Amino acid sequence: MSTSDSNTNTKLKGSTNRVPAQLPAGFRDYSAAEVSAREHMISTIKRVYERFGFDPLETPAIEFMDTLLGYDQDDEESAKMIFQTHRLRGRQLAGNEETEELAMRFDLTVPLARYVAANSGQLPQPFKRYQVGQVWRGERPQRGRFCEFFQFDLDTVGTADMYADAEIIWGIHDSLRALGIERFVIRINHRKILNGLPLVAGFDPALLVDVIRVIDKVDKVGIDRVISELVRSPESNGVGLSIEAGESVRRFMTVSGDTESILAHVEELCTGTGIMAEGVAELRLITKYLEDAGVSKDHWKIDLSIARGLGYYTGPVFETTLLDLPDIGSVCSGGRYNDLVNRFSPDHMPAVGASIGVDRLFAALKELDQIKLAPTKTQILVTQMEKNRQSDYIKLVAQLRQAGINAALYMGDDMAFRAQIAEATRRAIPLVLICGGREFKSGTVAIKNMTARQQDTVSIDDMPTYVKSILASL
Amino acid sequence: MSTSDSNTNTKLKGSTNRVPAQLPAGFRDYSAAEVSAREHMISTIKRVYERFGFDPLETPAIEFMDTLLGYDQDDEESAKMIFQTHRLRGRQLAGNEETEELAMRFDLTVPLARYVAANSGQLPQPFKRYQVGQVWRGERPQRGRFCEFFQFDLDTVGTADMYADAEIIWGIHDSLRALGIERFVIRINHRKILNGLPLVAGFDPALLVDVIRVIDKVDKVGIDRVISELVRSPESNGVGLSIEAGESVRRFMTVSGDTESILAHVEELCTGTGIMAEGVAELRLITKYLEDAGVSKDHWKIDLSIARGLGYYTGPVFETTLLDLPDIGSVCSGGRYNDLVNRFSPDHMPAVGASIGVDRLFAALKELDQIKLAPTKTQILVTQMEKNRQSDYIKLVAQLRQAGINAALYMGDDMAFRAQIAEATRRAIPLVLICGGREFKSGTVAIKNMTARQQDTVSIDDMPTYVKSILASL
Repeated sequence: MSTSDSNTNTKLKGSTNRVPAQLPAGFRDYSAAEVSAREHMISTIKRVYERFGFDPLETPAIEFMDTLLGYDQDDEESAKMIFQTHRLRGRQLAGNEETEELAMRFDLTVPLARYVAANSGQLPQPFKRYQVGQVWRGERPQRGRFCEFFQFDLDTVGTADMYADAEIIWGIHDSLRALGIERFVIRINHRKILNGLPLVAGFDPALLVDVIRVIDKVDKVGIDRVISELVRSPESNGVGLSIEAGESVRRFMTVSGDTESILAHVEELCTGTGIMAEGVAELRLITKYLEDAGVSKDHWKIDLSIARGLGYYTGPVFETTLLDLPDIGSVCSGGRYNDLVNRFSPDHMPAVGASIGVDRLFAALKELDQIKLAPTKTQILVTQMEKNRQSDYIKLVAQLRQAGINAALYMGDDMAFRAQIAEATRRAIPLVLICGGREFKSGTVAIKNMTARQQDTVSIDDMPTYVKSILASL
Repeated sequence: MSTSDSNTNTKLKGSTNRVPAQLPAGFRDYSAAEVSAREHMISTIKRVYERFGFDPLETPAIEFMDTLLGYDQDDEESAKMIFQTHRLRGRQLAGNEETEELAMRFDLTVPLARYVAANSGQLPQPFKRYQVGQVWRGERPQRGRFCEFFQFDLDTVGTADMYADAEIIWGIHDSLRALGIERFVIRINHRKILNGLPLVAGFDPALLVDVIRVIDKVDKVGIDRVISELVRSPESNGVGLSIEAGESVRRFMTVSGDTESILAHVEELCTGTGIMAEGVAELRLITKYLEDAGVSKDHWKIDLSIARGLGYYTGPVFETTLLDLPDIGSVCSGGRYNDLVNRFSPDHMPAVGASIGVDRLFAALKELDQIKLAPTKTQILVTQMEKNRQSDYIKLVAQLRQAGINAALYMGDDMAFRAQIAEATRRAIPLVLICGGREFKSGTVAIKNMTARQQDTVSIDDMPTYVKSILASL
């Protein structure tokens, strides 16, 4: 009876206490092939940013909630998607566990502003840094949107010189080309130009934030749905512009032509004065610097429909469209944010930066066939033919590793030769080492090239050199 | 009056709404010098693991709470230190926002077990993976303990063969040596040997978990305080062993000698049978494999005082002590955990692995002077001598970058020559490019070597080659 009870308990425990092997919605694992390829992509970009004189910085995943949102929490979109976090049992944190409101970073820009404010005395002027890391957003997971994704940011803090803005755009340009992408356009606009829109189009300046938020959707929903949302009444989730104002915004957003003709058009609209004219003058400077830097006009243009949703932008803003994959959206976006550091410090620290959406760009590179996915980095599998010679096989593995070759010993349960070869095939390991009684006797090993389906016998001493030469030829 | 009011408001807003530029206790930023040096260290270790046939995997920072703790939450230590997290406003997550309990990973082992259970059909047998990334623990921050830190794990899942255990130890050995560390010892014990302790020392097997937890503190508090805690009554926060049992544990923990004499001693204690004998036999196998692999006996030893606090270990366990810095604790620890995958799956998936404490090892390397910290990766600063020739300076910067040289344009507010040179000195940028009216006229530039305090004039065409040759000589 007691035995039977305990059996029942064990079974019950075994079945009901098993946790499902699942990830929360919006999260994912990355396999070896993806990690390796993404790392290769990241190190390519890193190399470009370092050529540009940007240095790395790392900030933690967790910050105070107030750091990320500001006391005003006026960035409503960010507040909606933030991951709050706390220590499970508010333990003895010097008595402040009650007041500690923590959250996970949703971008790398706000933590940078906090860092700059805290360290301004010690930083170069300007401070140029890059950072790559995960950010977390509790968005409703859909259409390939994830709650955890990688960003790769570069920013210049501490100068209002438009050269800094041009350099960020230049950096995006060089990064994409280093990744083998030639067909892209960086589309540039200026917040100061957008800020003149109420005057030009004739609507209440108080509506501008909403108008910009709607304009920002144009790539996803098209110009018609943007205008229709702008002129719909607030009761129907619109902005409530007049029909005339809406059409005026449409004309503005769709101005086309080369840089100079678009800028001349804007100047005409604003009669050459005021905030819009400042925007035009700054875009002219960027244009000049990009020419000095040798950035081809094929790769950037002025586009008055670019808005950027985020609240903190104050100057030039930009997005990057891949011409062969326009639907995936901007792979690299940014702009100038002169006031963000003021959330933390009275010092005036004008800043400009951009963020590469690493996962999106990675997906694009896969689709464009610019990325090689290799399921393993293992170069040779050492099979075990003779049952009692494990020591000798381990010595062969050690010899290969000492020569810098990525080598694994076959360790499956099925020791049949066929199973061992099948494992190499399944894992796409290019070479197999075979050593049976005959080879041991003659001090040789057989190396099988799985792709060429060719096998050679070499002496054990020559083996590492021989293996390296085949690997080099693959 | 209204003007004055609005001024007051602005001031009030400016001062009270400023968020302190602070990090939560236990979190930190990493500067350029640290990021670069840590990355160099990580890529060195990565290279070793890849030679061993381990492939990378990445899992997300956030998992279900139940995944991390199990339904039983029997790992009380982990439960105490976990960071719970949730989307700030429980939004429309397919209706399951109420039941979604999320937390941040506190190690990389449990997520691996979840991954293996979810993907077992598709994985190689055994599955050998490495993962590097942050983990989060809400511990009371003290004595250099942080709430966010990097771990670098390597694990082999799906085999009970002791070769896998030996290979993990071999991997630790090769990693440390690749980092330039020669004076270290990997101390190895076996949970099955510890599991025989109640019988050998004469105490209630129900107390074993507590005894192991206390034994695990020996490196921090010393043998006397361990024994004293073991024999103190539970009312005084002790384990409540008898004096005799305590002394018996002391004798057991302090057995010394070479591998064979320690193992023979344990065999004597257990009269060669039972669970302790299994442990001895497995340690003998590991010994043999380490010899086959050529791992010197100077770098590992059997040490019966090694316990490992974590609940999930079932076989060999190990820790790594740096002989020149014994007080910093183990820089690399691990062991066999045959049952962890069973939290998620009925499949038997025996596993073994280890975790390098990246931050601790990094701190050790700094203390041992094995790490070079360079404050910047920028190699040359292009100064601006002539006010109206910014275009020409940008062209020089572009020329340097195209040649693969890390170049920055001076962009400080103070354009005095002295200030520009001071910036290069302060940031430890090795070279400065100087180009004034005379140089522009003759198509030359001057390159100043800041370390050698030497300056040469070269033609603009030869400049990149010249700069590269100086950089190579530094």
